[in-house]
Amino acid sequence: MPPVLGLDHLAIAVEDLDAATRVWRDRLGLRQGAREIVAEQGVEVQMMYAGDTRVELLRPLGPDSPIAGFLARRGPGLHHLALAVPDCREAVAELAAAGLRLIDREPRPGADGTLVAFVHPRSADGVLTELVEGGEGPWRRPAEEVRR
Amino acid sequence: MPPVLGLDHLAIAVEDLDAATRVWRDRLGLRQGAREIVAEQGVEVQMMYAGDTRVELLRPLGPDSPIAGFLARRGPGLHHLALAVPDCREAVAELAAAGLRLIDREPRPGADGTLVAFVHPRSADGVLTELVEGGEGPWRRPAEEVRR
Repeated sequence: MPPVLGLDHLAIAVEDLDAATRVWRDRLGLRQGAREIVAEQGVEVQMMYAGDTRVELLRPLGPDSPIAGFLARRGPGLHHLALAVPDCREAVAELAAAGLRLIDREPRPGADGTLVAFVHPRSADGVLTELVEGGEGPWRRPAEEVRR
Repeated sequence: MPPVLGLDHLAIAVEDLDAATRVWRDRLGLRQGAREIVAEQGVEVQMMYAGDTRVELLRPLGPDSPIAGFLARRGPGLHHLALAVPDCREAVAELAAAGLRLIDREPRPGADGTLVAFVHPRSADGVLTELVEGGEGPWRRPAEEVRR
């Protein structure tokens, strides 16, 4: 696969978004971003920022959400990482050809016009790994905006 | 706590560094960096890069390594995240005063002249969180070097 553009985001599964926002903002020094419901993935998301890195706090919207299953099995914690790729469809085709196990054999629409696909943790050292094409990571912004 | 400077790194516990390096470099598109033994933490580290973000693949050096315990309990996977802070001693004092559970009540020397301390996962939504002062993250480099 061609080099990834960067880390799109890191996601943490939590039980209570308000409590988690207070911990990561007031105690651990992240900046608070927007909150949104992503109904098709069954989650409510609180965006946070560590410098330029987006950290998503994820809460399940109901018992059928994959996040609910994760919380039941393992409790809150690091849930997945997302890598920004230039071409999600090409990446998925290459990984499938190389024998990696994919959760999405076809990229599907993500938030904000992105195209996303998940690699199964069994093919990525136990890490649920999302591939994201598009979006507005720091690698897309002019360098002078990246510095804060 | 004052805003963190950024994400210093993300760490993944693995059984086999060579196999993991091949997966993350050849399949998932990360760039390979240096490999080093950090004896005081009982790990061998393979540095990888996703754009500007450092991803550390960690292998236990022996059965007493904390990574060995993690692998035995949960298998390979996301192990910790590290936040770059301006002043580790001040951060630790503030978090302790706020009642957070800390693994290190005093910062200790990390790699490359850094000062580090770990926050217990119970105080950070199940996420083992390292605070790092110093080091050479992208927030320290001139903007023109950050873009690739």
